[in-house]
Amino acid sequence: MFSSTGRLTDLICGNAEANAVWSPRATVQAMLDVEAALARASAKAGVIPANAVDAIVAACNADHIDAAALMTGAAAGGNLAIPLVKQLTAVVKARDEQAAKYVHWGATSQDIIDTGVVLQLRAALYLIDADLRELAASLATQAQTHRATPMIGRTWLQQALPITLGLKFAQWLDAITRHRARLAELRSRALVLQFGGAAGTLASLRDKALPTAQALADDLGLPLPALPWHTQRDRIAEAASFLGMLTGTLGKIARDISLMMQTELGEVAEPAAAGKGGSSTMPHKRNPVGCAAVLTAATRAPNLVATVFAGMVHEHERALGGWQAEWDALPDLARLTAGALANVKGIVPGLEVNADRLAANLNATNGLVLGEAVMLALGDAIGRLDAHKLVEGASKAAVANGQSLYDVLAADETVARHLSPEQLKPLLDPANYVGQAQAFVDAALDQYRASA
Amino acid sequence: MFSSTGRLTDLICGNAEANAVWSPRATVQAMLDVEAALARASAKAGVIPANAVDAIVAACNADHIDAAALMTGAAAGGNLAIPLVKQLTAVVKARDEQAAKYVHWGATSQDIIDTGVVLQLRAALYLIDADLRELAASLATQAQTHRATPMIGRTWLQQALPITLGLKFAQWLDAITRHRARLAELRSRALVLQFGGAAGTLASLRDKALPTAQALADDLGLPLPALPWHTQRDRIAEAASFLGMLTGTLGKIARDISLMMQTELGEVAEPAAAGKGGSSTMPHKRNPVGCAAVLTAATRAPNLVATVFAGMVHEHERALGGWQAEWDALPDLARLTAGALANVKGIVPGLEVNADRLAANLNATNGLVLGEAVMLALGDAIGRLDAHKLVEGASKAAVANGQSLYDVLAADETVARHLSPEQLKPLLDPANYVGQAQAFVDAALDQYRASA
Amino acid sequence: MFSSTGRLTDLICGNAEANAVWSPRATVQAMLDVEAALARASAKAGVIPANAVDAIVAACNADHIDAAALMTGAAAGGNLAIPLVKQLTAVVKARDEQAAKYVHWGATSQDIIDTGVVLQLRAALYLIDADLRELAASLATQAQTHRATPMIGRTWLQQALPITLGLKFAQWLDAITRHRARLAELRSRALVLQFGGAAGTLASLRDKALPTAQALADDLGLPLPALPWHTQRDRIAEAASFLGMLTGTLGKIARDISLMMQTELGEVAEPAAAGKGGSSTMPHKRNPVGCAAVLTAATRAPNLVATVFAGMVHEHERALGGWQAEWDALPDLARLTAGALANVKGIVPGLEVNADRLAANLNATNGLVLGEAVMLALGDAIGRLDAHKLVEGASKAAVANGQSLYDVLAADETVARHLSPEQLKPLLDPANYVGQAQAFVDAALDQYRASA
Amino acid sequence: MFSSTGRLTDLICGNAEANAVWSPRATVQAMLDVEAALARASAKAGVIPANAVDAIVAACNADHIDAAALMTGAAAGGNLAIPLVKQLTAVVKARDEQAAKYVHWGATSQDIIDTGVVLQLRAALYLIDADLRELAASLATQAQTHRATPMIGRTWLQQALPITLGLKFAQWLDAITRHRARLAELRSRALVLQFGGAAGTLASLRDKALPTAQALADDLGLPLPALPWHTQRDRIAEAASFLGMLTGTLGKIARDISLMMQTELGEVAEPAAAGKGGSSTMPHKRNPVGCAAVLTAATRAPNLVATVFAGMVHEHERALGGWQAEWDALPDLARLTAGALANVKGIVPGLEVNADRLAANLNATNGLVLGEAVMLALGDAIGRLDAHKLVEGASKAAVANGQSLYDVLAADETVARHLSPEQLKPLLDPANYVGQAQAFVDAALDQYRASA
Repeated sequence: MFSSTGRLTDLICGNAEANAVWSPRATVQAMLDVEAALARASAKAGVIPANAVDAIVAACNADHIDAAALMTGAAAGGNLAIPLVKQLTAVVKARDEQAAKYVHWGATSQDIIDTGVVLQLRAALYLIDADLRELAASLATQAQTHRATPMIGRTWLQQALPITLGLKFAQWLDAITRHRARLAELRSRALVLQFGGAAGTLASLRDKALPTAQALADDLGLPLPALPWHTQRDRIAEAASFLGMLTGTLGKIARDISLMMQTELGEVAEPAAAGKGGSSTMPHKRNPVGCAAVLTAATRAPNLVATVFAGMVHEHERALGGWQAEWDALPDLARLTAGALANVKGIVPGLEVNADRLAANLNATNGLVLGEAVMLALGDAIGRLDAHKLVEGASKAAVANGQSLYDVLAADETVARHLSPEQLKPLLDPANYVGQAQAFVDAALDQYRASA
Repeated sequence: MFSSTGRLTDLICGNAEANAVWSPRATVQAMLDVEAALARASAKAGVIPANAVDAIVAACNADHIDAAALMTGAAAGGNLAIPLVKQLTAVVKARDEQAAKYVHWGATSQDIIDTGVVLQLRAALYLIDADLRELAASLATQAQTHRATPMIGRTWLQQALPITLGLKFAQWLDAITRHRARLAELRSRALVLQFGGAAGTLASLRDKALPTAQALADDLGLPLPALPWHTQRDRIAEAASFLGMLTGTLGKIARDISLMMQTELGEVAEPAAAGKGGSSTMPHKRNPVGCAAVLTAATRAPNLVATVFAGMVHEHERALGGWQAEWDALPDLARLTAGALANVKGIVPGLEVNADRLAANLNATNGLVLGEAVMLALGDAIGRLDAHKLVEGASKAAVANGQSLYDVLAADETVARHLSPEQLKPLLDPANYVGQAQAFVDAALDQYRASA
Repeated sequence: MFSSTGRLTDLICGNAEANAVWSPRATVQAMLDVEAALARASAKAGVIPANAVDAIVAACNADHIDAAALMTGAAAGGNLAIPLVKQLTAVVKARDEQAAKYVHWGATSQDIIDTGVVLQLRAALYLIDADLRELAASLATQAQTHRATPMIGRTWLQQALPITLGLKFAQWLDAITRHRARLAELRSRALVLQFGGAAGTLASLRDKALPTAQALADDLGLPLPALPWHTQRDRIAEAASFLGMLTGTLGKIARDISLMMQTELGEVAEPAAAGKGGSSTMPHKRNPVGCAAVLTAATRAPNLVATVFAGMVHEHERALGGWQAEWDALPDLARLTAGALANVKGIVPGLEVNADRLAANLNATNGLVLGEAVMLALGDAIGRLDAHKLVEGASKAAVANGQSLYDVLAADETVARHLSPEQLKPLLDPANYVGQAQAFVDAALDQYRASA
Repeated sequence: MFSSTGRLTDLICGNAEANAVWSPRATVQAMLDVEAALARASAKAGVIPANAVDAIVAACNADHIDAAALMTGAAAGGNLAIPLVKQLTAVVKARDEQAAKYVHWGATSQDIIDTGVVLQLRAALYLIDADLRELAASLATQAQTHRATPMIGRTWLQQALPITLGLKFAQWLDAITRHRARLAELRSRALVLQFGGAAGTLASLRDKALPTAQALADDLGLPLPALPWHTQRDRIAEAASFLGMLTGTLGKIARDISLMMQTELGEVAEPAAAGKGGSSTMPHKRNPVGCAAVLTAATRAPNLVATVFAGMVHEHERALGGWQAEWDALPDLARLTAGALANVKGIVPGLEVNADRLAANLNATNGLVLGEAVMLALGDAIGRLDAHKLVEGASKAAVANGQSLYDVLAADETVARHLSPEQLKPLLDPANYVGQAQAFVDAALDQYRASA
């Protein structure tokens, strides 16, 4: 009723294109696409008569399929392919009784289901690839824009030392760049034909087995692997793992943004979309609706990956539970990842940055977070140890008296002897103590450009 | 298209009644049921005018809800309740403009979603309870029937010592009996109202807060807890944990049955349902279709439980991802458990037991599995250590020469001195060496009857 | 080297007492305790000679065990009991050759390992029970103390409406109270003898089987269950689930405290222990070291629970991987839970509450978070809808002009007509808009006292 | 006491070399190695005086570290590096007071811990790589040896169609070949320096930051990444994922071997090592001790991967729980994988193959599993549909009458008309109906050789 996929999370962490790839209808159609390709390939290899092809191909349309009958048949047979082939055969038969004999020739249920999933995965990864490219581009833009915008870095949820906002974007970009490399490597392993017949030997196709397999692979635009992989699920597990890792990175981005969006921090805000995250009675409230969706995905993804991994331990030539556990876990994961990616992709370019609050928060400790900068400068003159003691004392005094660190230091004789106010002042300017933040931004951008 | 829930696993591990409880429509209706009850309760407590109730209650029907608008609104607002309340308000307004002002009065989205889930969970646990009762009854019957039917016990997937088939049923029954006790305890904690308003204080209901909460609880037939539990998810986690544990037990049953069904063992078979698990071309093949479905559920359940547990770490008064992670994980788990339970419930009473194969397998080692029985009897006469050595030697000789252990022992002079053929023979009868198997069956049945 | 258990997390999330329960030595000793009890029980039941008992019991001391030999033997035999029994037998034999024949009589490895774990679990749960009692007491005290201390409630990490700090404590207490009830129920199911012999029939003990089992149970102070449960792991799974749920609740507490400890919020702080979480150079920094430890446990616990659940699917009468997966997962989980509990127990009573910051944060939005209170009061006079519009407009004006909501409202003519400054002022006092917060605190305390 | 790592699973799924990599001592030493390299690099970059290096490097030896003090300090500071640096400084100071000032210069705890883990991971992956190479070689040998050895293929744990034993080995080899490719890719991403200082900017190293980082990377033999990755954990997650996937494949191998080892199948056996898996009293029993260890690892690995993935969602510049969750999860996983790999590597080359039992099991259905071969041959003559009906009828008759399929078919007139006994006989020889099994073996071997 309320979702094309029946999942509540798809409502908030949705991506219409990705949901469409994994919809029940698309799943059936992917399997029918494999059956159609099989008919063409078998005819090409001389396994079935050429004149059977058209009727079969024409019937391979999800519109012809009766959902209720599919459901009953799947429960009895244990998978979706059995009743689907039965219905497909009936549809073909109604048009061409001879052709009906050649439906699903030489294949087993798992061939159709596995290769159908590969087709869906190809489509899903294509979308993810495009979204990653877009996200990387906007992260690069933001990293460049805020390359030198100082903000407080936080460790343990405590203010630590200044960084730049651009560095945050650069770190996210850096991870996304790696994910893109992983995706490229994964595609060559995961997006291949799975075709082995009843026990993985293609025995019923006799001497036409390999030509049929090659023709089927060509028809579907999938490489033909050295041998069927129905019992070896590492290809699927790698896809799941990629999706899970990517969602983890997206979750990290969402965590940071939602923390920076806290009312008390107010450093950034998700872009204001019509009615998104707002509250009419509480105009101060800007709910991180997109981040929440991403964090939902990040909470669920690790366990969906674990399910696919747990399912790898198949029994002999067809599994009893392990294979079947993939059926929903992989699509659920793929949709969640796509949804999380859509959300982050939607947030990053329009992220509202509140420069005043960034600056205000940098000053929240009255300069204490810059004690190290002073200590280093003083250390050059009076030795690091003495400088450390002096700044430590000044910091404590500042806290105790509610003064700024600058005021305490400026009033200190030792400091005065070595640092003029003109020298001291800039030491307490956060923008001057961001270390290699900008160099790191540049390095991440260089890397991004090299990989793009 | 092919499933009322959009999940592939529901096809093979399905339970129509349970799927109906968690369908998208039922989810929306449960939320509307809470809204209707809230209207009645608020009026009763004097919060809203009594004449607003009828229009609101009449509108609380999922038929009035536009799915497409729900989807768009949920994405913007971050949950399903926001657009649902908006639509509900519009439906009421069309009938009674005044009444429309009182829709959802005093409640927050999470109140409606949480209590809606509690209503669904109540229905789901009711069905599970009934199924558990039925399953326990048929396990008890089978345990009684096969109380004394000897079969080989297997450890490490190797033949070990005889047990009885009834003992297997009794062990399964024993676990199910415990799950029923857990279910009873869990219901009192998990099936309670969740109602706290925007921040958990019911502030907007002012002095009518507690009377409204009590009236709402009464209306829904749910106990009123001491305080709202929107941020404390242990009640939900406990429900998830119960479902996961039960699925683990069902998985163990399915593992055993599917192993006993192996072609080479052939000890039992899932009952033959029309077209279920059979193969027209391979009449010897009897696929454990039901067991595979249960094992699929058992592969997925642990990670769904983990997802709910991982979600417990909420932020402040409303979570950012942790709460939302429950939304599909709990229903997925509940449906899988119900499906697994339906499968096991369907298999146990009609399980086909092949007495010949049970007996044949008991003799597969030519008596070696009964060496211990002989050793104990001989030990009474010649000391345990010497008996051990003698039987160990005889066993090795039996293997080496392809003889039965009986033949080797019968030919042994020491044995002959202490055990006549009439004494030796029954020692090598597996039925005589099942220890407390029958006593344990009786104990499990006593316990079952006491708990029933 | 750096930890009694070899785990890094035990360093930061440690609990010396709990670590001791699960140390390698304690594990061996627990198994030896079972062997000693078995010797006494077997003698009592007339299975082994009474004069064999002393030598066996005396040998059941982990000091006699050679670790290196245990390791080699465990790898060959597949579990720890096999080499342990071998060594134990040798130790007994060195003292009393006759007695050595009666070591481990009638038991199988799993009996010793399972019952050993039950003994460790009993000790672990005893410690947890005591810690829960202490934690509940300090939560109750804090809830009472801060019953009326207003603070801002936050949803979506955004300021929402006021609550009281006491309500937070009460919510945590409420969950802990439920966990204590679960623990009581669980103990009766999980802390029982596991004793079934080689295939679960106690066959080798012949007619002395049940008396031996009863005597063994009595000796160890564990109830004797209806039948052995070596293949049914729900008892262990329930213990794991309890630990996981409890850790989830503790994680929620740690999440809240660490968020409130953020530099920018500064509402609470972990009690300052010597050198704990402090930084000499950054005196403003107060790292939530304890909370981090708890959150580490909360990140790991769900997947340890899932491991135990996944292991439930045993094969026949002894599992191939599922049982063995418990061996470290359960102790790891038990230690993490105990460590998390120790941390929270250490934090709660001494939690430093910064009243100034609580108050300041309540005012961070210049009164916007109290718009609802004004709206309700005005609504009584001018109707809710008009009141809503008025307050909404005032809120937007306040944000736009940087005014406080009070100032905007006080200048509004409509407001002035219905609310005098003396009436308006208290409406914007957060302490007056905490709804049932105090009533909920009282209810949680009542419940706690009833259960204590 | 009983294990160098304190884990019970390491006892049965152990790999001494891998355990050594992750021992507490090795963990401390890896961190000290980073500190020593940092001293050398800092001096090279001119950050610290050259004459401070020797004293620091000499002190970087785990022998100097007091474990008890480490434990106390780690609990207070929240990680192992804090007390370690403190002790290290004291050790250096005792020798050279000046040098002590330059210990840990410019680094933060996480730099030392992360890069230490990278060093351990490098060692662990080196061992795994070597083991994978060895395993692949023995799988290739076995695939070649049994290229044409027919055995029954099993789907749903039911006999289906013949395959060859070599095909099983080839499928396992195929997956291992992919894992080796993944490992090569992963190393370039995961085995890099992590060095960013307190907030990831290397600010305290001022203009010497990048030269120091480069010198440190060079010293450790690790590439210098574009920027620090302390907050981006995909590198670690990818390593975890690789380990988990590999363990899944090993689990599949162990599942198959343990199923084939069942007493009733007896097709293969783990190589008989001294005392491994044997039973003195039950000489027929050959426990799959190695497989059980691997399956234990395969049960645990998915959830350890999930833990690392769940930990990716860090807070700002240093995480509160997510990072710390890796500390034990990654080593646990790495050791389990290494242990599982050692077991499979130990089993494969010496796997005992029982040709008689393979053949006997192929005949267990009296030829029914070859019905398809006859059907195809007959189909050429009488049409596939009629052939199907005929063979289906013959199969049912064979089952009903307890005859072999050959006897029923040989007596059939239609069959006799088209197939002479000389033609029929070989159709029912399993060796003639293994399809592309041998071609697939060859393809897997070609691929292996190309990748080796």
